Amino acid sequence: MIEAFRIETHGPGLYEFTPELVDWVAAKSVGTALLTLLVRHTSASLLIQENADPEVRDDLHAFFHRLVPPATDPSMGYLRHTYEGPDDMPAHIKAAMLPVSLGIPVVDGRMALGTWQGVYLFEHRNRPHRRQVVAHLAG
Amino acid sequence: MIEAFRIETHGPGLYEFTPELVDWVAAKSVGTALLTLLVRHTSASLLIQENADPEVRDDLHAFFHRLVPPATDPSMGYLRHTYEGPDDMPAHIKAAMLPVSLGIPVVDGRMALGTWQGVYLFEHRNRPHRRQVVAHLAG
Amino acid sequence: MIEAFRIETHGPGLYEFTPELVDWVAAKSVGTALLTLLVRHTSASLLIQENADPEVRDDLHAFFHRLVPPATDPSMGYLRHTYEGPDDMPAHIKAAMLPVSLGIPVVDGRMALGTWQGVYLFEHRNRPHRRQVVAHLAG
Repeated sequence: MIEAFRIETHGPGLYEFTPELVDWVAAKSVGTALLTLLVRHTSASLLIQENADPEVRDDLHAFFHRLVPPATDPSMGYLRHTYEGPDDMPAHIKAAMLPVSLGIPVVDGRMALGTWQGVYLFEHRNRPHRRQVVAHLAG
Repeated sequence: MIEAFRIETHGPGLYEFTPELVDWVAAKSVGTALLTLLVRHTSASLLIQENADPEVRDDLHAFFHRLVPPATDPSMGYLRHTYEGPDDMPAHIKAAMLPVSLGIPVVDGRMALGTWQGVYLFEHRNRPHRRQVVAHLAG
Repeated sequence: MIEAFRIETHGPGLYEFTPELVDWVAAKSVGTALLTLLVRHTSASLLIQENADPEVRDDLHAFFHRLVPPATDPSMGYLRHTYEGPDDMPAHIKAAMLPVSLGIPVVDGRMALGTWQGVYLFEHRNRPHRRQVVAHLAG
């Protein structure tokens, strides 16, 4: 079974879509299964991370923004692919470093996530984007 | 088929559980199959890495400890999620950067790993933890 | 279904093998399916990245070469596993940080990649290598 999830982003950061996944998987009435997610972009990522304290999301964004600063930062002067602005190539680098696909076992019709785990799209670009995540579910 | 592997950790570093996986997969008598692993935590990771020289494991831990130092390090002063100690938020960052799930093809009832590849849980927290990895095997 | 893709490398950087994957998947006449890739080495990675501008590939290599410099760099003096040269342990670190496995949904017999996504082997060693990627396809 295949579905495409669409996520509208407005600037860098984490966008949770766990509830949409929970509903879709539940509706398919599978018992034990495997859910696979793929983000169809090279400047956004998928992340399974803590769903309790929103400060975790802020800190994650802050860390990766410092590790891979905009091309205008003196330390990034060697970058060449900067046609779409200073956040262009750093977004590709973050998309290389963070997951593009995730495999999530399903047990009794529910994703076998830990108590504190949520599923996020991690947007790396500044401007608004419409992102697509393909979901594959095999019973 | 579903199994939960439990791994007791006592401080940061790599904990191998390849033999447990080999035994479980062999007992299932599958020919060609797909094994998917998911760690059910946001402060530990899964890693496929060199299983020969233990210095590789030490160096891996040393590198990531320098790349993402404790919150007490002056360079990490911007972190806000530090309620559980200086290793709290750095553990989330490492868990974002390193794999949370792995897909491993199985051929003739054995994981198709390379000669030097072992499967590890990478613990990022200082205190002892009981970690859980969900394994899904589909023939 | 299982296949092994062989990729000859001559120095660090990204080597695309999307066309070989497209042909193999197409020949299997699956409709909806899941393709899983695993690189059988601990000093090379898999990457889904932009397939248009080759400068993206150069910039990716440049960034990770700066983030994890050779063992001869003063900042890496703590590394111990350096038997095969200054690119030995940095290659393991990059292989830990970047994907070892990828899950790619297949729809209508084609990988559900985005328009700009290609599949690459990312070689981290300086000397020529023959790399192997195992592919598993389940319909």
